[in-house]
Amino acid sequence: MRMYDVILKKRYGGELTDEEIRAVVRGYTDGTIPDYQMSALMMAICFQGMTDHETAVLTDAMAHSGDVLDLSEIPGVKVDKHSTGGVGDKTTLIVGPIVAACGCHVAKMSGRGLGHTGGTVDKMESIPGMRTELSREEFIRTAMEAGITVTGQSGNLTPADKKMYALRDVTATVDSIPLIASSIMSKKLAAGSDCIVLDVKTGSGAFMKTVEDSIKLAQKMVAIGEHNGRKTAALITNMDIPLGNQIGNALEVEEAVRTLRGEGAADLTQVCLALATEMLTLAGKGTREECAGLARQAIDSGEALERLAAMVRCQGGDEECIYHPEKLGSAPFSIGVRAARDGYITHMDTAGIGYAAMMLGAGREKKEDSLDYLAGIRLKKKTGDAVRAGEEIAELRASDEALFAGAEKKFLESVTIAEEKPQPEPLVYARVTAEGVEHIF
Amino acid sequence: MRMYDVILKKRYGGELTDEEIRAVVRGYTDGTIPDYQMSALMMAICFQGMTDHETAVLTDAMAHSGDVLDLSEIPGVKVDKHSTGGVGDKTTLIVGPIVAACGCHVAKMSGRGLGHTGGTVDKMESIPGMRTELSREEFIRTAMEAGITVTGQSGNLTPADKKMYALRDVTATVDSIPLIASSIMSKKLAAGSDCIVLDVKTGSGAFMKTVEDSIKLAQKMVAIGEHNGRKTAALITNMDIPLGNQIGNALEVEEAVRTLRGEGAADLTQVCLALATEMLTLAGKGTREECAGLARQAIDSGEALERLAAMVRCQGGDEECIYHPEKLGSAPFSIGVRAARDGYITHMDTAGIGYAAMMLGAGREKKEDSLDYLAGIRLKKKTGDAVRAGEEIAELRASDEALFAGAEKKFLESVTIAEEKPQPEPLVYARVTAEGVEHIF
Repeated sequence: MRMYDVILKKRYGGELTDEEIRAVVRGYTDGTIPDYQMSALMMAICFQGMTDHETAVLTDAMAHSGDVLDLSEIPGVKVDKHSTGGVGDKTTLIVGPIVAACGCHVAKMSGRGLGHTGGTVDKMESIPGMRTELSREEFIRTAMEAGITVTGQSGNLTPADKKMYALRDVTATVDSIPLIASSIMSKKLAAGSDCIVLDVKTGSGAFMKTVEDSIKLAQKMVAIGEHNGRKTAALITNMDIPLGNQIGNALEVEEAVRTLRGEGAADLTQVCLALATEMLTLAGKGTREECAGLARQAIDSGEALERLAAMVRCQGGDEECIYHPEKLGSAPFSIGVRAARDGYITHMDTAGIGYAAMMLGAGREKKEDSLDYLAGIRLKKKTGDAVRAGEEIAELRASDEALFAGAEKKFLESVTIAEEKPQPEPLVYARVTAEGVEHIF
Repeated sequence: MRMYDVILKKRYGGELTDEEIRAVVRGYTDGTIPDYQMSALMMAICFQGMTDHETAVLTDAMAHSGDVLDLSEIPGVKVDKHSTGGVGDKTTLIVGPIVAACGCHVAKMSGRGLGHTGGTVDKMESIPGMRTELSREEFIRTAMEAGITVTGQSGNLTPADKKMYALRDVTATVDSIPLIASSIMSKKLAAGSDCIVLDVKTGSGAFMKTVEDSIKLAQKMVAIGEHNGRKTAALITNMDIPLGNQIGNALEVEEAVRTLRGEGAADLTQVCLALATEMLTLAGKGTREECAGLARQAIDSGEALERLAAMVRCQGGDEECIYHPEKLGSAPFSIGVRAARDGYITHMDTAGIGYAAMMLGAGREKKEDSLDYLAGIRLKKKTGDAVRAGEEIAELRASDEALFAGAEKKFLESVTIAEEKPQPEPLVYARVTAEGVEHIF
């Protein structure tokens, strides 16, 4: 294989062979294919796309570019879940324990937040003592004991993806469905679970801005998973509004606990139950209706909360923080953000609200920035709610009062208040499985 | 300017500003923009194209990335000529002296051959003593004394083009009309002439395979030249048949001499007179009809041949070789290639015939290969000619008999003989000027 010929073929819309794709991934990972050829190929892929078969082979090659986790010591079905990233998205800390309570095992790798989106690992670290860099043995043992474990990515997992993503990030080739899908799915394949549920976020706080694009991405990822022998399904969920009412690391752990107690916000609870139902259905725990019942019961019985506490304990964290989340602490300063006029909240620019939380210290602008685990936002009103001039619509919390001015401005710019009550939007737009797309309205 | 934003803009079909284009060329030349970003941008240009304005600015920026020749010491109009490259293309050695004999000055930089195409500098070096790496002073002096000079590219001319071309060559981004046009024209702008005539070769021996694509390329180059204050015109000429009857370095010098004596092959003479007419017309020497007369007269009077001899003398070569070209010598071995059947030659794969000459030693497969100046091919029959089985259609000449088998096979594969006499094809398809396209049939 000559890389030149591969680039030329893709430039003119040809379908790459399995051998060509595997040679490209191998050569790029070991450094024999230079960046300048890889970036030309990726730009050609942005224009010409890749077939489902090409994308599945690319993903498999990326997954096998480094270590692949072997979860076979853990008995039963292993179920993984991935979110494309949102604001206030603490679903892993709710859905994982629910699914574990129903007899599945969730052994999950997760990332850190950047920009307006958060990461589960950061949220977990707001619990005193909690360790998120587990050895392989600790990871397996926690999954078996608690039914759920979440660790940061460790070892030499998908080095091809790391290198390709870094290159795409500086060559304007991020925004390509086959390249996004293969990047996400290569990590999921390497993480070793049997079933994968994808939460594809859509709207102002998500990478995908339209339901149509989200469905395309979901279809590609489902095709990749199924082609590689994993049961895969995706839900297209609404990220045109922050999920739940709290944004910020400790604030989100507290909200997760409240939801597992059955006292969570309606939107967050509904999305978590939908995701858990999908995971249980894929894992063969019954019909979709039966699985929905099991998920609900895992909350009502308190078993899901127990699983979260067990994970925290196994990973060195203070499980008392799960039973008494006020022990997580709270930021010393707060201000109320108030509505400037009467009306209804007609739109929230969710990315903007995520940035406001970041400005308070809850997120990172650059990878090397440090976090304030206690900083963040409590939403008092959301899209569709009536407000009066001067009424508090959100509480901002921070460890430094100087941060409020900028964050408040950003927050207010992100909220639109108008006369007319907006039409409510669905929380889950569609379900994508190997069988096809089912729109949910 | 962030290179990332420029790539993204072009990826989505935007028009780059003058400032962005100049910053890209400057940054890539000085190394602050890395190869991997440049190759992504060039691939995006392959898909999205560039407007005439963008291409003209790109070309000007490339032309000014290094030294720009100042020919102002040479009196009168300076006319340059460029061929996109063909087989048996010795036109510079004929057209240059004709135009010089008519009172214009031709101070031209030329290149070396690679693959199936030849280069004027190589042909000139088949003349004993001939120097092709002139200092600036020698270059100007020869132009003034002989009216024509040809030198290899020297100094730091268009470093941006050199770097960009080397990158395109390994990233499958060569084949793009704005990138080809800017590469050619940047060198012509930097070479300093007032008028530029482009010979855009079309057909099996040329880079452009169709008249339509050649016209597009010619239009782009004419637009670039005119935008940058140079009078520019192009002829679209036939390269579906080798030009003239001799291929190989000394063999082509000999054929050039014969043509300047008025004894050249009809096709070669016609194309050379058409190019010379275009150059003289651009230089303001009269109407197109008057200029055609001047060019013809330059041959008939022997003045053009004198000019060629003067250039050879000024550049250290043995001018006796011009008056007695048999002094160039001939390769020690020859074989005749014979027709396998009766019929007409209906097609010649010109690139294939160029490769056969290369295999005999007349060309280079790789840049570092050395040449046999005496090796090459004399065509006895060309497309349209009747042949009988066993009749000699070409003579191959080489310094090593072992080379004949492969070259003969390649030659025969490149010649089609069939029943029916083919329709004659035009030698010049079209003329492209600032006024538009004129088809010539």
